[in-house]
Amino acid sequence: MQIVIIGGDAAGMSAAMQIRRRQPDWPVTVFEKGENTSYGACGIPYFFSGDVAQLDDLVVVSPESFRKKGLDLHMGHTVEAVLPAQKQIQVRNAQGETFLQSYDRLLIATGAAPIVPPWPGLDLEGVMPIKTLADSRRLDALIQAGRRKVVIVGAGYIGLEMAEGLKKRGLDVTVVEKLAGVMGQLHAKVTEQVSAELARHEVTLKLGVTVQGFGGQAGSVTEVQTDQGSLPADLVLVCLGVRPNLPFLKEAGLVVGASGALAVNEKQQTSDPDIYAAGDCAEAFHRVLEKPVYIPLALTANRQGRVAGTVLSGGEDRFPGVVGSAVTKVFDQVIARTGADLLSLEKAGIPYRLAEAQAPAQAHYYQGHGQVWVQLVYHAENLRLLGALMVGNDPSLAKRCDIVATAITAKMSVLDLSELDLTYAPPFAPVWDPILQAANKARFQLLS
Amino acid sequence: MQIVIIGGDAAGMSAAMQIRRRQPDWPVTVFEKGENTSYGACGIPYFFSGDVAQLDDLVVVSPESFRKKGLDLHMGHTVEAVLPAQKQIQVRNAQGETFLQSYDRLLIATGAAPIVPPWPGLDLEGVMPIKTLADSRRLDALIQAGRRKVVIVGAGYIGLEMAEGLKKRGLDVTVVEKLAGVMGQLHAKVTEQVSAELARHEVTLKLGVTVQGFGGQAGSVTEVQTDQGSLPADLVLVCLGVRPNLPFLKEAGLVVGASGALAVNEKQQTSDPDIYAAGDCAEAFHRVLEKPVYIPLALTANRQGRVAGTVLSGGEDRFPGVVGSAVTKVFDQVIARTGADLLSLEKAGIPYRLAEAQAPAQAHYYQGHGQVWVQLVYHAENLRLLGALMVGNDPSLAKRCDIVATAITAKMSVLDLSELDLTYAPPFAPVWDPILQAANKARFQLLS
Repeated sequence: MQIVIIGGDAAGMSAAMQIRRRQPDWPVTVFEKGENTSYGACGIPYFFSGDVAQLDDLVVVSPESFRKKGLDLHMGHTVEAVLPAQKQIQVRNAQGETFLQSYDRLLIATGAAPIVPPWPGLDLEGVMPIKTLADSRRLDALIQAGRRKVVIVGAGYIGLEMAEGLKKRGLDVTVVEKLAGVMGQLHAKVTEQVSAELARHEVTLKLGVTVQGFGGQAGSVTEVQTDQGSLPADLVLVCLGVRPNLPFLKEAGLVVGASGALAVNEKQQTSDPDIYAAGDCAEAFHRVLEKPVYIPLALTANRQGRVAGTVLSGGEDRFPGVVGSAVTKVFDQVIARTGADLLSLEKAGIPYRLAEAQAPAQAHYYQGHGQVWVQLVYHAENLRLLGALMVGNDPSLAKRCDIVATAITAKMSVLDLSELDLTYAPPFAPVWDPILQAANKARFQLLS
Repeated sequence: MQIVIIGGDAAGMSAAMQIRRRQPDWPVTVFEKGENTSYGACGIPYFFSGDVAQLDDLVVVSPESFRKKGLDLHMGHTVEAVLPAQKQIQVRNAQGETFLQSYDRLLIATGAAPIVPPWPGLDLEGVMPIKTLADSRRLDALIQAGRRKVVIVGAGYIGLEMAEGLKKRGLDVTVVEKLAGVMGQLHAKVTEQVSAELARHEVTLKLGVTVQGFGGQAGSVTEVQTDQGSLPADLVLVCLGVRPNLPFLKEAGLVVGASGALAVNEKQQTSDPDIYAAGDCAEAFHRVLEKPVYIPLALTANRQGRVAGTVLSGGEDRFPGVVGSAVTKVFDQVIARTGADLLSLEKAGIPYRLAEAQAPAQAHYYQGHGQVWVQLVYHAENLRLLGALMVGNDPSLAKRCDIVATAITAKMSVLDLSELDLTYAPPFAPVWDPILQAANKARFQLLS
């Protein structure tokens, strides 16, 4: 049984390790186009902020370690086509030679690629996305060479994390966002808190400004051209999110979902039962919206990879889906969310109600306590929790959000949430945790 | 309808506020024996550590504020007896005069009192429990008067929190514990981590040492006598936990549970349907052990008070119970727990299995990350989560513990837990949160 895996990062390697463990004798061949396996791309902004000592620390497992575990791992190999009819893929090696590789079962785990619009000036030195360790090394080298004035295009997760990282690195940072709010206009509260936090740290945020291209001198970027004039820059990071990395699949005939990612069933099988997909190139079932979504995140990639690996090697497993949990921070402001966002609920015709609380993160008398805002979303009829959004200057918001993620997964109602026996001690929470305070607001409305 | 409440702290005043809101015209009379209403006793150790600016900050709501809301509140009034046959209570005021007060419905919310064995020397100046604001003022005055050498008797929550507080206040601190481990011998891991943390902060911990009494000079304590010699001390805090404060109930004939606290139903009614009880003087239903327990904690007092107040004023509510969630810290070590402890499970004949993980609290490459240990307890047959214990130097353990508390409440299995979509970003967690790592260990054992 020849297993072939395309992509050597989280999803691919999680699958590979499952297969190796369950079927020690099956040949497992992995093609990775880059120079690294399994690395923590999410840690890149924290290398620039100084919270990660060196980029190599982000490499979780090296190619050598995987080879020692018996994987037939090929670095610098790009897959150019999948040929399901003949159960082969076409591969190009670092020398530019192409060859065919046969498979019995194939896993596509090619991840995502940065979205970069066809702007004029993209080829100027200093203009780049920031996705891989190679991108990071290039950016680091440019900063070491003296570049100091960065414009970040896009105020999503990565753009904001890089703004913090590069400000802490000592650069002059401007973030330009086409929309009127940050993070995909998640919520006015998020925009308000993040804007204030960026201002407090002297990062310039320009909302409602559309980038049109880049100008330069001697092949190097010198300005970002926008619909509201030009901004000086010797570095430009394009942080507009990612899309599934699937160009090599054009002729393969696999079903792609509405999101643009590969459609998969709960066993991670694509429309071809011998071809699996996992991670940032695949959809995931959303347990609240009860439909496939595209939310490329590291834990999902690991979980899907594990399921794919188990099933690929003859075991039983299924991926139950995601609830859309995510967290980031901008300096000291933490933004955490889980469940369905309001726009998705409206599109799906699911009636909802909101309950909000602004509260200290620890006992109100505990000096230096944080301040957090919690918004709960619940079904207007059956009262089931549908989502939560939290913002504030308290690191425990990440795990507070997970309390609601757990409650959502368990199909608890907002009343059930209000009756949880949560931990309390003055250094960690008020007697009524902010989550309980928000749930109590709903309880009060519903029961009085 | 005359409502009478005995006790003006968390449970009593939560109830009073519900009644006021629901029945604005009913007379509500409250007797409080002390000088404060609704205060955060849990914050006392943090006044001594300097994390709370002044003791008065711990007062959540003053007697005056409650009176403005229409409560007939009597401070410094001690209830001496409850006479259910005649629906009256006997009250003694600050002047020593006693009188009878009639009630239609009565709430007993008298809280708990410190356990103090009948040791010789208890009356020496400097020997005291630490439970109330009055205790705290007395202790503060003694420290201001120059006392510096404190022996804390008991290495439970309060004893350890006071050890941290008084060490930070600059005192020479020794903790003496009769048992071989801290926190009621919760777990060897807890004793190990806490012992190391106390040593790191130069607090002396003496385990397996039994106190026999106190010696003094000129009416003031100078030593603690133990089975292993005497320890010099000019201050002694007796921190052996609390028991329900019910001496005035001797003749009342109300049913007291095996725990020594008042037995109540889910409406907070005692065995007399016109007498309710809530808070630290009452039992609570344990949702895992499915029996009444005595775990006096602030959130439970607030929740039970709210239920009692709603029912007392003619509304519908019920207290669904607790799962035993609690958290404390000793300097930087956090100890959090939820669910049933192993001893209770063994006594109840519930077969269990364990799954443990030691893991970084944030991404392993994130500098300054914490280290945490997570132990999950699950049913050996139906795999339902039964409990969790967490220890480590990361403040987010409190809310991590709440993730499991939520899962336990929802009757999730350890496999369900392993499939949760939890938030991830390098400053907040590894890709697989330590909780998921522990759940994965169980998953691996169960599914392979």
